[in-house]
Amino acid sequence: MSILAVGSVALDDVETPFGRVTGALGGSAVHFASSASIFAPVHVVGVVGSDYPLGRLDFLRERGVDLGGLEVAEGESFRWSGRYTHDLATAHTLDTRLGVFADFHPRIPEHFRSPEMLFLGNIDPRLQLEVLNQVERPRIVACDTMNYWIEGSRSALLEVLAQVDVLLVNEAEVRQLAGDPNLFRAAKWVREQGPKRLVVKKGEHGAILFDDGTMFFIPGYPLEDVFDPTGAGDAFAGGFLGYLAGNGDPTPRNLRNALVHGSVLGSFAVEDFSVGRLARVTRDEIAERVRAFRAMTRFEMPADCAPPTADRAP
Amino acid sequence: MSILAVGSVALDDVETPFGRVTGALGGSAVHFASSASIFAPVHVVGVVGSDYPLGRLDFLRERGVDLGGLEVAEGESFRWSGRYTHDLATAHTLDTRLGVFADFHPRIPEHFRSPEMLFLGNIDPRLQLEVLNQVERPRIVACDTMNYWIEGSRSALLEVLAQVDVLLVNEAEVRQLAGDPNLFRAAKWVREQGPKRLVVKKGEHGAILFDDGTMFFIPGYPLEDVFDPTGAGDAFAGGFLGYLAGNGDPTPRNLRNALVHGSVLGSFAVEDFSVGRLARVTRDEIAERVRAFRAMTRFEMPADCAPPTADRAP
Repeated sequence: MSILAVGSVALDDVETPFGRVTGALGGSAVHFASSASIFAPVHVVGVVGSDYPLGRLDFLRERGVDLGGLEVAEGESFRWSGRYTHDLATAHTLDTRLGVFADFHPRIPEHFRSPEMLFLGNIDPRLQLEVLNQVERPRIVACDTMNYWIEGSRSALLEVLAQVDVLLVNEAEVRQLAGDPNLFRAAKWVREQGPKRLVVKKGEHGAILFDDGTMFFIPGYPLEDVFDPTGAGDAFAGGFLGYLAGNGDPTPRNLRNALVHGSVLGSFAVEDFSVGRLARVTRDEIAERVRAFRAMTRFEMPADCAPPTADRAP
Repeated sequence: MSILAVGSVALDDVETPFGRVTGALGGSAVHFASSASIFAPVHVVGVVGSDYPLGRLDFLRERGVDLGGLEVAEGESFRWSGRYTHDLATAHTLDTRLGVFADFHPRIPEHFRSPEMLFLGNIDPRLQLEVLNQVERPRIVACDTMNYWIEGSRSALLEVLAQVDVLLVNEAEVRQLAGDPNLFRAAKWVREQGPKRLVVKKGEHGAILFDDGTMFFIPGYPLEDVFDPTGAGDAFAGGFLGYLAGNGDPTPRNLRNALVHGSVLGSFAVEDFSVGRLARVTRDEIAERVRAFRAMTRFEMPADCAPPTADRAP
């Protein structure tokens, strides 16, 4: 399955306790594609200014990412400046300059208009609707959003959600969207708005997949050194959707493995600034962390807890 | 294996968004025993005032809990008053009256002095040392503590830790103890102070067992309605240690199942005020949640991630 990804393509200035970087590759579409392209063909739609160092996206082209939908407009690229303090939990935004992104209206090139999978990155829900209106119904529509849109563009967002199969958001966003402090009640409400499948990202605490009345939990990968959390959520989405796109149907087994791969890619993403680690991660390294996740979560039940028939993981 | 549990025996006044209760059974030793006694014999050492409604502990006696070490002193029982707001994450202490607990010095009855397992509840580390000095070296010494002692009685606490096999604390406490914001580096440091096994409780985010270079993660049991979180940590410890005591040696497999049972008992504890739910929980209900944990955490790896030889859960 190939993926059409629409989102921001930005330059980031990031400061963490471990260093700083200026004008690094950033934006939801870039983080997503850096991760998803490991598993499946990705087409990117976005906009950059005439200042964007397009040559630095060559590693994506080499992985078969189609950047034909990346418009270059007169002006400055979207630029985000942020700082993380010692616990690395929260990004403090120092400056946001929208540049050419302020007037962005996604134009889906002719040859992208029948995507099998569509990823709507975290942008204005009205732009997400514009994308949905330009494509033939994909097999899987996935979507990300954030507090800003939940608060300010609720009705457009609910219109998007009605057309979404998989929503990927963090736990604060689920609670905010549903207006319920209990995550499990909130998840139920959100799934009633459209997305049959809901992925709740909990950062260092892992992630949960809600699917068809079942839940699947994966912990955060244990890292002793987190370097830069920027883009981890998009890398997670890229691992999740990339794995699904590369492995056929969204069966329960594939969905669980997709969540594991999302967690693995999210864990690599934070080990370097920008997409540095995603650009050089290998399939062997990924498989090693998948095995580690399995070793860290398996247990054999005592006989008096086991159900009468042998149970198999989906 | 039988367990000697030393800790507070209190009366709690608790207010949550769902109701309030006055003079409810509380204290670390009571919550612990309510949970551990489901799996193994428990001997309790503690102190109450002459006002304590001892008859209300009959459900523990019926489960074989030996209260022979529960001293009744002239004066008022330890009383804690607290309130939880809507997210139920943090207890706001309204009042703490130590009463007879202020002068408590644990006296271990003759017939408890060779316990196979010892649980040192969250009390002054100097009292924990007094207990250790009165008993013959148990097979397993387990211990809980809190921010107050980490800050104010650090050297006594480190002296305790040197004699502890299993430390059960929450994640903020691990970080504070080690002075390191990264949980995994902090866990490594803590294990170097004595406890070979470390259980990190993360509330709704689950728990982690660190043992001998390996980690085992269990998520929080998904509850749509949390009623009162008071004592959940002690119920968790009771489930963990009770399971271990009831099932023989601390093999990797038993330790993992112990963590699952700790999570299950913690999840029941919060479903009612005080020890209400623990007093009526059945083995069938426990087994059902153990099975649910297994269903919510299992996944079958794709072939390209699997190691060359079959892997078995410990």
